[in-house]
Amino acid sequence: MANFKGHALPGSFFLIFGFWWSVKYPFKHACRKNRKVCSSGSKVGLQRMEIIEGATKAAFALIGMIAEQFVPDGPHLRLYNYEEKQWSHLMNWQHSTMYLFYGISGIVDIITHTTKVVPVAIDRLMLSIAVFIEGFLFYYHVHGRAMLDVHIHLLLLVAVFAGALCVFLEVFHRGNIILELFRTSLCILQGSWFWQIGFVLYPPGGGPEWNQMDHNNMLFITMCYCWHYAFALLIVAINYGIITWLVQIKMKKVEPIQMGLLKSREREEESEDEI
Amino acid sequence: MANFKGHALPGSFFLIFGFWWSVKYPFKHACRKNRKVCSSGSKVGLQRMEIIEGATKAAFALIGMIAEQFVPDGPHLRLYNYEEKQWSHLMNWQHSTMYLFYGISGIVDIITHTTKVVPVAIDRLMLSIAVFIEGFLFYYHVHGRAMLDVHIHLLLLVAVFAGALCVFLEVFHRGNIILELFRTSLCILQGSWFWQIGFVLYPPGGGPEWNQMDHNNMLFITMCYCWHYAFALLIVAINYGIITWLVQIKMKKVEPIQMGLLKSREREEESEDEI
Amino acid sequence: MANFKGHALPGSFFLIFGFWWSVKYPFKHACRKNRKVCSSGSKVGLQRMEIIEGATKAAFALIGMIAEQFVPDGPHLRLYNYEEKQWSHLMNWQHSTMYLFYGISGIVDIITHTTKVVPVAIDRLMLSIAVFIEGFLFYYHVHGRAMLDVHIHLLLLVAVFAGALCVFLEVFHRGNIILELFRTSLCILQGSWFWQIGFVLYPPGGGPEWNQMDHNNMLFITMCYCWHYAFALLIVAINYGIITWLVQIKMKKVEPIQMGLLKSREREEESEDEI
Amino acid sequence: MANFKGHALPGSFFLIFGFWWSVKYPFKHACRKNRKVCSSGSKVGLQRMEIIEGATKAAFALIGMIAEQFVPDGPHLRLYNYEEKQWSHLMNWQHSTMYLFYGISGIVDIITHTTKVVPVAIDRLMLSIAVFIEGFLFYYHVHGRAMLDVHIHLLLLVAVFAGALCVFLEVFHRGNIILELFRTSLCILQGSWFWQIGFVLYPPGGGPEWNQMDHNNMLFITMCYCWHYAFALLIVAINYGIITWLVQIKMKKVEPIQMGLLKSREREEESEDEI
Repeated sequence: MANFKGHALPGSFFLIFGFWWSVKYPFKHACRKNRKVCSSGSKVGLQRMEIIEGATKAAFALIGMIAEQFVPDGPHLRLYNYEEKQWSHLMNWQHSTMYLFYGISGIVDIITHTTKVVPVAIDRLMLSIAVFIEGFLFYYHVHGRAMLDVHIHLLLLVAVFAGALCVFLEVFHRGNIILELFRTSLCILQGSWFWQIGFVLYPPGGGPEWNQMDHNNMLFITMCYCWHYAFALLIVAINYGIITWLVQIKMKKVEPIQMGLLKSREREEESEDEI
Repeated sequence: MANFKGHALPGSFFLIFGFWWSVKYPFKHACRKNRKVCSSGSKVGLQRMEIIEGATKAAFALIGMIAEQFVPDGPHLRLYNYEEKQWSHLMNWQHSTMYLFYGISGIVDIITHTTKVVPVAIDRLMLSIAVFIEGFLFYYHVHGRAMLDVHIHLLLLVAVFAGALCVFLEVFHRGNIILELFRTSLCILQGSWFWQIGFVLYPPGGGPEWNQMDHNNMLFITMCYCWHYAFALLIVAINYGIITWLVQIKMKKVEPIQMGLLKSREREEESEDEI
Repeated sequence: MANFKGHALPGSFFLIFGFWWSVKYPFKHACRKNRKVCSSGSKVGLQRMEIIEGATKAAFALIGMIAEQFVPDGPHLRLYNYEEKQWSHLMNWQHSTMYLFYGISGIVDIITHTTKVVPVAIDRLMLSIAVFIEGFLFYYHVHGRAMLDVHIHLLLLVAVFAGALCVFLEVFHRGNIILELFRTSLCILQGSWFWQIGFVLYPPGGGPEWNQMDHNNMLFITMCYCWHYAFALLIVAINYGIITWLVQIKMKKVEPIQMGLLKSREREEESEDEI
Repeated sequence: MANFKGHALPGSFFLIFGFWWSVKYPFKHACRKNRKVCSSGSKVGLQRMEIIEGATKAAFALIGMIAEQFVPDGPHLRLYNYEEKQWSHLMNWQHSTMYLFYGISGIVDIITHTTKVVPVAIDRLMLSIAVFIEGFLFYYHVHGRAMLDVHIHLLLLVAVFAGALCVFLEVFHRGNIILELFRTSLCILQGSWFWQIGFVLYPPGGGPEWNQMDHNNMLFITMCYCWHYAFALLIVAINYGIITWLVQIKMKKVEPIQMGLLKSREREEESEDEI
């Protein structure tokens, strides 16, 4: 949907996932270090969490597809307009296709974590493919529009392709906290940028329109994109800090003596890392 | 051959190989987990299978080269037309060259698996080179044609270069089931897309021609490419499911008790993977 | 600041860091081999060094941002000029944004090496992001200027993106001396090239202006860039030699006998490496 | 030198190195497997070989630089023509710069293998940089020439950048026979392609000139490039076969019994690889 809501919807999806990941991965990382805190039942819990995450992803994708198809000016599942002898609402169909692959990724997540026959890394491969397909379709999507419109969409591709690459690397470096946080920040960036696109191209509340041909607007938008990323990094950093602090408080309550020992051992390990 | 058959032939080759791989790799993966099922003689059997695969690849390449050279309007091995002072049937020669490298890859496969003096990973390097050469030639091949014709061929390059990269990664991560399945899906995509190209550019049975200059057709074709890939993923998933299911049935018959033990051990290993 | 000083300032920053790294990393490498020389207290010392480095980076970034904002013809923190209804001093704002990310990188360095809760590799990821953002902004920055101006800035991107890639690889290969020296040489290249840009585009002392449209100037500048890199490699090589030589002299003084033993053992290890 | 000899000279250098590597790496690989054959003194021998190789590389680079500078229509070390107020013989200077980096690479090779203070992988990094610089300069070098001239030079870049990447990977995978053979084949390709460029652009013996604007010539040249690579692969394969065969013959003479044991052990290792 080429309107404000059509950008706010995926933006919200990405923001929700980015925010959730910025809580989940620091927590998992803290758990990996302090096994005592995240004790019994956590394995089953983590697995259930993954399944719910996959189901949420699939549900978001379904909502997106339905919204694209059944808005008043949508295609209502009709692909070809036989009266006018041309394709019907190709934009909506392309958006549906993007959602479709995220849906497949969600389903693969569920299958991976419920059965044991599928290699676990397949969920990352499928997510990487979904993100790549999004970028691939966007690349051809904006062909022939106004300069600012094209530029603002193409900027998104930096986050998209970096995200696809990052997730693909996770196939080989599963559980690497650096890559997970990087992916999280890119996901938040995508989310907030979708909102930004909505505000720039379809100013809500009848605000003043942006001059699509002004070169200065392009320069500003490029810089603005970097600020969005700084903002995304800030959110990840704050959530990382809060989660780590909460886990440490809980840790101190549980076993004050044993932890002291663990801590000193840890410190040694880390300092050896550096040399 | 710039006609329907010239696209259906390689399309069929890729489909056959993609389909075969979607059976072979899940089976090998299942065997790796349950050594009892794929018991004695399997090593020799697997090796023989690889040799047959290489021979088939070389045979397909030979068929392709002969077809390109000796169709009625082909070059019949003549490279330069001295009467007209120009190159003769360069398109057919380029196709022959593409087939040639797949042929070399097939021969290298056979050598790798019959003798012991060649490092095994050389078969992947050679396949990667063959796929890359295909993409390299295609890239310059379509220069100066109609817009849709160019676009539909260039889309193929995404699958080709992704395939070349994937196979190159297999040089270092041999036997990685994720990469093998990824390669399989890209191979099926190539196969089905060759058929699609044939149907779009040379509608068989005198169907209506596509408007090569319509921008909407380009948008549709791009999206259609993604659907082909979703279809390729579906085939891989279904075959993976069937093969795993068949192996598990056989496993239960063979040694019902021992397997139970193995299964529980496996589960522990996998869950440690996740944390 | 589009003047000589605006290029000399970042140039000096990069040169200082490049030169410092060309001393630091060979020293760390020599220490790793001869643990006796860099004895007790060195762990704490190395950590303090990293913190000071991070603080310096952040300070340089702050200086850069203040300089860009508060030069006489700067924006003085005003982003939008309401009188003229346009963005105010976008170039200075873009430069400030580049400095901002280096500032974030510096702060992350400090946090990483003072607390123990953050995974160490995050400092490299953040540096890689900062370098990438610099290149990303530069890419759109020079749009629409004279040919030589564009070319001389785009050449910089080779060093920038190679640097970003190199630092990203360090996330996975931390402490790899090869990558560290490679990064050092690219950093010196950036520094000296910023000075070169200043001299070419804004000849100080009223020297003759360069013809911005002469194709030969472009060819010369491209070659000159390679010479700068040869010069950067030379600096790294000389500093590497001096540091290694100084460490070996100190080593001989400390424990002449024990070292002899160590040395012969080392030689064996290395030669096995080669085979 | 923009003439036949100016292309034949580097072509010969690359061919000599490619041919030498196609003998050296299979031999090293065979030695790694059969330690008995390449017995005592081989370590020192291998090291001496590396030093000679580095010296040869540096000598070739020096010859190239001298040839470019002191041919009759060369710059004779003069960079700026003050009479005509323009750069003097920039093409020759660019070629000299390319040779310069290969020279540095040769010197680094010598230093790496004579002293023990330098990490060994630095020789590959430096070679990778040298190859990249060659490609980088070539990319801007051909700007503004005739279509076929540009195309035939840009084709070279595929081999150059693939070579740079391959050598860079060797920094992390030193001694990987697959990468070494791949590099060898790309080196031979470069060598034979330089000769081809010479024959096409400056037909010796007053042969007919090629039409630089004929699209068919471009298509043919692209295909021809692939044939050159097939030829390069063939040379590598033949030399690999001969060397392996010679080593095996020698092996059988030396210790017929012991080898049999080794061979069967080897076979087991390899077949485990496959599963």
